Amino acid sequence: MAVEIITIGDEVCRGDIVDSNKSRIADNLTKLGLLVQWHTSCRDVTEDIRQAIEIATARAQVVICTGGLGPTTDDITVDVLCEVLGSEWKYDPQAKAILEKRYEAIGREPTELTLRQVRIPAVAAPIANPVGMAPGSQMTIGNAQVFSLPGVPRELEAMLPEVGDKLKGSFELSAIPEITYRTFGATESGMAKRLSSIEKSNPNLSFHYRASIPEISLRIAGEQVALDNVDAEIREAIGKYIITTDQRPMGQVLGEILAGEKVAVAESCTAGLLGALFTKAGGSSKYFEGGVIAYSNQVKIQQLSVSEKTLEQFGAVSEACVKEMAQGVSERFNTPWGLSISGIAGPSGGTEEKPVGTVWIACYGNGEVTTQKIFYPRSREKIRLVACYSAMALLMRRLKSR
Amino acid sequence: MAVEIITIGDEVCRGDIVDSNKSRIADNLTKLGLLVQWHTSCRDVTEDIRQAIEIATARAQVVICTGGLGPTTDDITVDVLCEVLGSEWKYDPQAKAILEKRYEAIGREPTELTLRQVRIPAVAAPIANPVGMAPGSQMTIGNAQVFSLPGVPRELEAMLPEVGDKLKGSFELSAIPEITYRTFGATESGMAKRLSSIEKSNPNLSFHYRASIPEISLRIAGEQVALDNVDAEIREAIGKYIITTDQRPMGQVLGEILAGEKVAVAESCTAGLLGALFTKAGGSSKYFEGGVIAYSNQVKIQQLSVSEKTLEQFGAVSEACVKEMAQGVSERFNTPWGLSISGIAGPSGGTEEKPVGTVWIACYGNGEVTTQKIFYPRSREKIRLVACYSAMALLMRRLKSR
Repeated sequence: MAVEIITIGDEVCRGDIVDSNKSRIADNLTKLGLLVQWHTSCRDVTEDIRQAIEIATARAQVVICTGGLGPTTDDITVDVLCEVLGSEWKYDPQAKAILEKRYEAIGREPTELTLRQVRIPAVAAPIANPVGMAPGSQMTIGNAQVFSLPGVPRELEAMLPEVGDKLKGSFELSAIPEITYRTFGATESGMAKRLSSIEKSNPNLSFHYRASIPEISLRIAGEQVALDNVDAEIREAIGKYIITTDQRPMGQVLGEILAGEKVAVAESCTAGLLGALFTKAGGSSKYFEGGVIAYSNQVKIQQLSVSEKTLEQFGAVSEACVKEMAQGVSERFNTPWGLSISGIAGPSGGTEEKPVGTVWIACYGNGEVTTQKIFYPRSREKIRLVACYSAMALLMRRLKSR
Repeated sequence: MAVEIITIGDEVCRGDIVDSNKSRIADNLTKLGLLVQWHTSCRDVTEDIRQAIEIATARAQVVICTGGLGPTTDDITVDVLCEVLGSEWKYDPQAKAILEKRYEAIGREPTELTLRQVRIPAVAAPIANPVGMAPGSQMTIGNAQVFSLPGVPRELEAMLPEVGDKLKGSFELSAIPEITYRTFGATESGMAKRLSSIEKSNPNLSFHYRASIPEISLRIAGEQVALDNVDAEIREAIGKYIITTDQRPMGQVLGEILAGEKVAVAESCTAGLLGALFTKAGGSSKYFEGGVIAYSNQVKIQQLSVSEKTLEQFGAVSEACVKEMAQGVSERFNTPWGLSISGIAGPSGGTEEKPVGTVWIACYGNGEVTTQKIFYPRSREKIRLVACYSAMALLMRRLKSR
């Protein structure tokens, strides 16, 4: 069952925005067991939209169109669909009633322009928009099921479940079971090497790697029994890199392993990013106490008890310094665990001895401090992100080895 | 001069990744004065790639293809291009020499598989890859100039300037001058209203709004003289929302306005994000001293001198608390400026009196503290980001009103 996704909008074609709608829809439909074969984007131009729909309905059985459903005169998707269908448009009675009620509440009447957004092709079935004004619609063009949906990501996302239900009603879909191991700390090729014999002895499973810095995901697809059988072997081979197989942020995963114990952070070059990552998910006050952003040496000395001698002798980017930072924050914040980061994130500030990308991290807990030196000469953004992940991974190893 | 962009890869079609290559290329070419008319993505399948190239070369004069140039057997773009061109492939001598040299350095010889990535169609001209192994190539198919480039974003980005130069050599391009005002604090419709009379009296200029939370950008395109003339009026109307007209992160813009004075931060719900934003660009140690991540009340009391009475009487999310936090961090860190944030970022933790999205911010400086209450009931991620921007905007207002 081949799918084509069409997104309509000048801002997409010009590259003003990164169009995340296509991947959102594709991910949804792939998980339902559909084969997403084509993505197309075109401008808000009648002839281009018509051409996109004609090509898509000739080569795909399911076509998902987004965009061009708003109230302004450059929102023309419904008109083009009507032209292709040889149909009139009509107001979707339910969407129109909601819009009129909303206008009544503010003592006004919708203009004809406002009402444009509740139009659908007369031969189409409406799809309710639970978070916006413009309804979607479903119709048949040639041999294809065509869905027209709004381009506003929040509205699109809210409507995808109904589209999924309709597709499940129309087609025999069977999603291929899969599991995704999210990892940190190994390279793609390093993992592939470690897993090569497992991959060879399981030809019925497909292995896919994907890097989204700083994580690398391994997705394995195949029969559920085979997935279950191979799980232990996978964990044996790359277990120390696995963060989780679900969607939780790494900070939250760590929070659960901390099981009630609290962590505090002392950050130099990452300047708060580690704290922000620890608290990405709600409920993080259960395991995250706070921290010190020690961007200057003065702060390291006064707020974290780093000794001036250490800074003079070894500099701020040194094993000695991160050790004192981690212990200092743990003691001052009265937490069992203290994590620290100090490095050269660039783009300037590197030296021959400590080039850009050099980062020291430390983990203090139970009277013991462990450290790690990282060298990751990339962009400032990536160096900082990898430094934070490395610090979290260091704590995870400590917690797991207890 | 119509352009079509084709990105090739199963991971794009499946929606495993958000494909930012298309918008990166489109933005580049749009700025050169080209009209990007189509974006297409297809899988790593010979028949699909061929179909995409055939459609694109029939309807566009410039086709940019990315992806499928790696060393593995599912990288087949060069083979498909050769098929379409009726050409053989050849090794790009320069790229091959670089690869061989690199292998020599580690005492190995490249295999035939490794060498796959330095192939280009025999009739094509190579495009050097300054940061990776696989060269790009340029060729003519039908009436279209076709460029084949790697899908790795870093490599693609490094090669786009040469593509631009070649296009400028082939076509008479005249980029339309434009200016982008990056703003924070006003809504899109609010800005449009404030600017409506300016827009009406300048029909030769086109106004485009784009929201990328928390910023809203206003891009105005037209003749340079007209852009220059309208600038003062624009600043008169929305000046207080304008961050900058260039690419610098907001923290860096603020850093320059601080002109040598330093800021320290005290963060509760944002837990370090404000510090991370202040230090996004290099050189931030000139204006950023550090901060306290005061996620728990205990930290607010002990590290920032917030009084227990304030917390008991008003709670942590209160004007009184952020005032003490801002002053506390400024005094303890010995900086002229202190910024603080305390709010309810959710998804849980809201009450009737203080629902999720309620955030207090304060700015302390010169013995004076100014505060602001924000109510922005969105996702945790957006609440935290808007809180940080609001705090930076509060400091910016203080600095500008001196």
